[in-house]
Amino acid sequence: MFELSPRVQDLKQQIEAFMDEHIYPNEALFYQQVKENKWGAPPIQEELKAKAKSMGLWNLFLPHSERGAGLNNEEYGHLCEIMGRSSIAPEVFNCSAPDTGNMETIERYGSEEHKETWLKPLLAGEIRSCFSMTEPDVASSDATNIECEIRRDGDEYVINGTKWWSSGAMADSCKIAIVMGKTDANAPKHLQQSMILVPLNTPGVTIVRDLHVFGYDHAPHGHAEIKYENVRVPVSNILLGEGRGFEIAQGRLGPGRIHHCMRSIGVAERALEAMCRRAASRVAFGKPLYKHGSTSENIAKSRCEIDQARLLTIMAARSMDQFGNKVARQQIAMIKAVAPTMLCNVLDRAIQVHGAAGVCQDTFLASAYAKARTLRLADGPDEVHLGTIAKLEMSRYL
Amino acid sequence: MFELSPRVQDLKQQIEAFMDEHIYPNEALFYQQVKENKWGAPPIQEELKAKAKSMGLWNLFLPHSERGAGLNNEEYGHLCEIMGRSSIAPEVFNCSAPDTGNMETIERYGSEEHKETWLKPLLAGEIRSCFSMTEPDVASSDATNIECEIRRDGDEYVINGTKWWSSGAMADSCKIAIVMGKTDANAPKHLQQSMILVPLNTPGVTIVRDLHVFGYDHAPHGHAEIKYENVRVPVSNILLGEGRGFEIAQGRLGPGRIHHCMRSIGVAERALEAMCRRAASRVAFGKPLYKHGSTSENIAKSRCEIDQARLLTIMAARSMDQFGNKVARQQIAMIKAVAPTMLCNVLDRAIQVHGAAGVCQDTFLASAYAKARTLRLADGPDEVHLGTIAKLEMSRYL
Amino acid sequence: MFELSPRVQDLKQQIEAFMDEHIYPNEALFYQQVKENKWGAPPIQEELKAKAKSMGLWNLFLPHSERGAGLNNEEYGHLCEIMGRSSIAPEVFNCSAPDTGNMETIERYGSEEHKETWLKPLLAGEIRSCFSMTEPDVASSDATNIECEIRRDGDEYVINGTKWWSSGAMADSCKIAIVMGKTDANAPKHLQQSMILVPLNTPGVTIVRDLHVFGYDHAPHGHAEIKYENVRVPVSNILLGEGRGFEIAQGRLGPGRIHHCMRSIGVAERALEAMCRRAASRVAFGKPLYKHGSTSENIAKSRCEIDQARLLTIMAARSMDQFGNKVARQQIAMIKAVAPTMLCNVLDRAIQVHGAAGVCQDTFLASAYAKARTLRLADGPDEVHLGTIAKLEMSRYL
Amino acid sequence: MFELSPRVQDLKQQIEAFMDEHIYPNEALFYQQVKENKWGAPPIQEELKAKAKSMGLWNLFLPHSERGAGLNNEEYGHLCEIMGRSSIAPEVFNCSAPDTGNMETIERYGSEEHKETWLKPLLAGEIRSCFSMTEPDVASSDATNIECEIRRDGDEYVINGTKWWSSGAMADSCKIAIVMGKTDANAPKHLQQSMILVPLNTPGVTIVRDLHVFGYDHAPHGHAEIKYENVRVPVSNILLGEGRGFEIAQGRLGPGRIHHCMRSIGVAERALEAMCRRAASRVAFGKPLYKHGSTSENIAKSRCEIDQARLLTIMAARSMDQFGNKVARQQIAMIKAVAPTMLCNVLDRAIQVHGAAGVCQDTFLASAYAKARTLRLADGPDEVHLGTIAKLEMSRYL
Repeated sequence: MFELSPRVQDLKQQIEAFMDEHIYPNEALFYQQVKENKWGAPPIQEELKAKAKSMGLWNLFLPHSERGAGLNNEEYGHLCEIMGRSSIAPEVFNCSAPDTGNMETIERYGSEEHKETWLKPLLAGEIRSCFSMTEPDVASSDATNIECEIRRDGDEYVINGTKWWSSGAMADSCKIAIVMGKTDANAPKHLQQSMILVPLNTPGVTIVRDLHVFGYDHAPHGHAEIKYENVRVPVSNILLGEGRGFEIAQGRLGPGRIHHCMRSIGVAERALEAMCRRAASRVAFGKPLYKHGSTSENIAKSRCEIDQARLLTIMAARSMDQFGNKVARQQIAMIKAVAPTMLCNVLDRAIQVHGAAGVCQDTFLASAYAKARTLRLADGPDEVHLGTIAKLEMSRYL
Repeated sequence: MFELSPRVQDLKQQIEAFMDEHIYPNEALFYQQVKENKWGAPPIQEELKAKAKSMGLWNLFLPHSERGAGLNNEEYGHLCEIMGRSSIAPEVFNCSAPDTGNMETIERYGSEEHKETWLKPLLAGEIRSCFSMTEPDVASSDATNIECEIRRDGDEYVINGTKWWSSGAMADSCKIAIVMGKTDANAPKHLQQSMILVPLNTPGVTIVRDLHVFGYDHAPHGHAEIKYENVRVPVSNILLGEGRGFEIAQGRLGPGRIHHCMRSIGVAERALEAMCRRAASRVAFGKPLYKHGSTSENIAKSRCEIDQARLLTIMAARSMDQFGNKVARQQIAMIKAVAPTMLCNVLDRAIQVHGAAGVCQDTFLASAYAKARTLRLADGPDEVHLGTIAKLEMSRYL
Repeated sequence: MFELSPRVQDLKQQIEAFMDEHIYPNEALFYQQVKENKWGAPPIQEELKAKAKSMGLWNLFLPHSERGAGLNNEEYGHLCEIMGRSSIAPEVFNCSAPDTGNMETIERYGSEEHKETWLKPLLAGEIRSCFSMTEPDVASSDATNIECEIRRDGDEYVINGTKWWSSGAMADSCKIAIVMGKTDANAPKHLQQSMILVPLNTPGVTIVRDLHVFGYDHAPHGHAEIKYENVRVPVSNILLGEGRGFEIAQGRLGPGRIHHCMRSIGVAERALEAMCRRAASRVAFGKPLYKHGSTSENIAKSRCEIDQARLLTIMAARSMDQFGNKVARQQIAMIKAVAPTMLCNVLDRAIQVHGAAGVCQDTFLASAYAKARTLRLADGPDEVHLGTIAKLEMSRYL
Repeated sequence: MFELSPRVQDLKQQIEAFMDEHIYPNEALFYQQVKENKWGAPPIQEELKAKAKSMGLWNLFLPHSERGAGLNNEEYGHLCEIMGRSSIAPEVFNCSAPDTGNMETIERYGSEEHKETWLKPLLAGEIRSCFSMTEPDVASSDATNIECEIRRDGDEYVINGTKWWSSGAMADSCKIAIVMGKTDANAPKHLQQSMILVPLNTPGVTIVRDLHVFGYDHAPHGHAEIKYENVRVPVSNILLGEGRGFEIAQGRLGPGRIHHCMRSIGVAERALEAMCRRAASRVAFGKPLYKHGSTSENIAKSRCEIDQARLLTIMAARSMDQFGNKVARQQIAMIKAVAPTMLCNVLDRAIQVHGAAGVCQDTFLASAYAKARTLRLADGPDEVHLGTIAKLEMSRYL
């Protein structure tokens, strides 16, 4: 449907082959190993990472940087969809959230020292990172509500606050957090917040607990509630400067949404495939499921919705590549409002076609649904994005 | 969002300017003239046709023919969206249904004589045509149900049957029908039907009545119920040959759907624009409508759905252009299932935002809704297209 | 499903028999007569009115009054559903909107003189009335926006304003309007408006035009735009007193909603019946329509939605009867938000099952849809009622 | 909204008080104890059972039996809703599934010996039971697909098959299964299956594993996959007789659905309450959540859907009580199609309003959603019930 450059076409085929050969067949083993060592890196993951790295299927996400593979957002989007089909794949290619966003943030807004200390091992897949923004005590959908305090004290910043949904922070390998908080409560609303690098082994950082998602602990990464109590880091740890948190948030936001949405489309494709295979193999009331009108409609609607969401996302990526985040802002809001909901719908239908098998551990569907449902909240609930879309639409008439 | 060739870009701008200058300002006059002479050609229409023709904005729909403008389906699709914004525009550019489909049919499947006699005046905009397929007495969604009889008798075919929803046939200028019927009831199902040219002034052809759509008579074109009683035409009037009705139906079907869908997208854009303007200008409960969550959501969802439907349709056109109708079959079914429903939804929201003004003659919304609702049935109900999509999807797994 | 008293059971059977014998068989004749004399009373209507009146099937709607039949809202609700099945039936039983609401308003809030002059002939079915509240120039969903001026000048009120959607006012027999307008623009918001009786033959009253609904003119009643220019009526024409317009609006509102909703349920039942009959009689792709999954689902969902809406409405009526309008306020808002949407959905499905026959004049479906869609706006758009429901729900927690 | 007898009114108040005093405050402790002893009975549960029993709030579900409390389905329905609000409550009142269904089955279809051996300790809350019907290898939505073999061999039946979703069977206290299987594969379809009592300690019975639901293990009850290999039980263990499995299934089905649906309504009420409280307490973009249109709409729609589902369910119970399961068949299918979907929708909205808190362990919402989603499949997927509703509706016209 899309014309890909020979290089992207080639990468796509390599990744598809890698998925078939190394990813899908090892999913069960991966989760077996997770059971044995919840927050450690599963050996099979490290093994596959080495393999992917050696093949050059590594850090494909990073545009505009000599450290990356030189792919733009649209090109990477197509590859991201393939990786997204398996929950264990993105990290194998060093392309998993929130590390991609964090790496891009340090690449764009970090100092040379930040890059040497944190970006290098992140790009090497040696450590992991988290993003500490959301707070349990305020409606974080409105980021101006964020209350964590980042107070300057001489050559240091002192951080106090409680964050949760710091995804990936449960992993033993997670070493660094990008923390968002207020440096100046008296500044104009959009200049109050800053982002700062906080090594997780800094005194005062406490992992309080791991948050579950519909009963899943999402090991080996997990979602952490983290308490920051009088945590002191050098002033040089601040990114870009005081009061520039929103500016960075805007900058990191676009690519991350493309990634989330393309991975969602990958999951939806896998769900549709599962739906079709199930519909072909089961018989009820005298005919295979796919000959029942409701199943047939489930399949058809899913195909329509998936293809539309993919087109919308790829076009958003293209706009970002051509015109930048700002011009593409409405499109970026649109894909965030569209793709997770589409994925929830497709998975829900796939569950329905699978019957009881669809809600239990025998398929990937229920676990994928739990993640997809969370995506309708993460990085802003649907309502916020719909509001953005409407606001930008109305701006043509006001 | 799309890269258009300089020529298409130029045509698009010309058509947009034409719409602004000549179409929108004359809509009221057009319907005023229709009131005075229901089934005649409104003088303003003929005037604008002459203007469009002289500017070369004429017959842009016809691909693969020296008689056309040399645009492919994707290119024409973009122009078709603009024309679709006004119900009076397509005919002004000689690009209105069902004439486009009929012209393309004669171009592709007609004899030289057919072209000389019928295609020429149709391309000149001198006469109009209709397509007589659907029948009141059978579920025509399943075209094998069609019962009209086309019996050979020496050098003539004798046609007997009742057709309805022969759109355009009420117009005084409508001179020719393409009639579908059974030439051989004993042949395999898909070889029973044929298509034949029947001049409407042939003895035995009776216009029984005009069908309304949600109270609208759709003058000056109208939808006719037509009785064919012992209608005799020369054997040379058959298209392509006996039993090839389905083959022709398949051939004409793809482009027609692109046109319908792109026009639907044009209407949806106009509805969204109307919705935004209304939301900006009305105040309820202390704030303008667009600041109410429900209106804002209506706007945002409409933008998401319209953009997705457009992308899907343009990609279907591109597939048709590159790989032909057969390869694009699933995509063609998808746009037919998606675009009319999208349009109904967008119009319904626009009506809601307009309040009582939305259901009456003061806006184009109610009348557009009536047409959009009909599109979910015309050329096959949604259910048939969803069935086709599912069948093609399942074929990968059976 | 419900236990009805013997009297109500008896009335129900009589009305059902009357519908079968006199209403359904005369629908076509009724509209035939309307064509011949658009805004006059069709002779068949007057004939049937006489018959219904003589049988005592007359004015059944009026509770708490010796002038009525002594039925409470719940009891009348069941009868109203039956009458609602045909668009020509309610007036035959002198139970049609907006006359019922107007009669109840005069009964409850009118003076003896008002009753003698207007209520008497209305109850006798000799004249008709309209309700002039909505205005074209403001968002009337927020009734505080109403701008019509009712200025006292000595012993008279002088009325200036433009109203539209004064339903029934196109009928020759419509003689009296209840007009809502501002008597005191400086009073607190909910005390600014008053209601006043205005005979339509008063100098200064002009019927500007009739408003169409999706192409239908709704003759013989019609929806009028009315201009009131320096219209003078005696001060005694005011209802209840200056500034009490909202109080009256609240009072008249409950029963009217029960009626609208029960009639909607009647229409929905008829649509479901039509859907089933069509599904039984048509064959596509080798089996009757009802054996296709999508049709079967349409039927099942419609049955579920209709039964739920009926239960909700009957319970709202019961609450009103037992505890009054104020206590039943949330329920009254709920049925208004639920029943018209339910009806739109059921009709839309019925249309889909009927194919092209569903959108034209050959069934009642398209015309019923147009009315049902309007009901989602009339007497407040859905959004307003949803807002009321939420507000009352939240009041338990604030 | 409903008129309850003094006794039911009294029981309702007692149960509500019990919930407030003993259930809600102990939910956290209950799940704390479950963590310590997954499949054992949590001490707090046994403590509360004793309390409820001593107060006579015990076995309220069993109609038509001197062993029950003498409540009919409608009366119990109202109480069941209250109990359903907490996942730990039903068993405390000895009213939890599948025990209620199993007890009723033995009461209605069991021999005196069955009652003495199994019903007595079940009614005493000393043991628990499971229902072994669904199989992993066939589409069990079509019960004629069930393949488990029950072969007579002298005075014994020999059972071979694999069952899953035997809910409750993971509990240490679960001692008896009602197993459905084929006694005669050559009999007419609806006479092939039988039900038989199988003590879980019979040789050949193996609990293979516990099935998770969206990541939850549903301890302390769990859903078991059970292998029956050459399991021998005396012929007297058969219920009602060979080939009467479907007959029993029909009989047990009605009340169970009322219970499931009323509990669902209880959960939905609790979710709506949580939604409102959250909406009152959180502020985003300058105003509390409930003042945002989308939240307000979520609340209003939930109230409408809950009330409608409750009315439908109570009326179905009333029909069952008055006219029996057979007459109430369409209504029973309707509530099964309506209530679980309603609950999923309400919970989904509540999750959205709670943001990330809604998907994790900090609220009951995600866990309730997982169960609710499963209810759309358990005891037949929605599609089957919609099919039943349509079939019964169509039967009036065929």
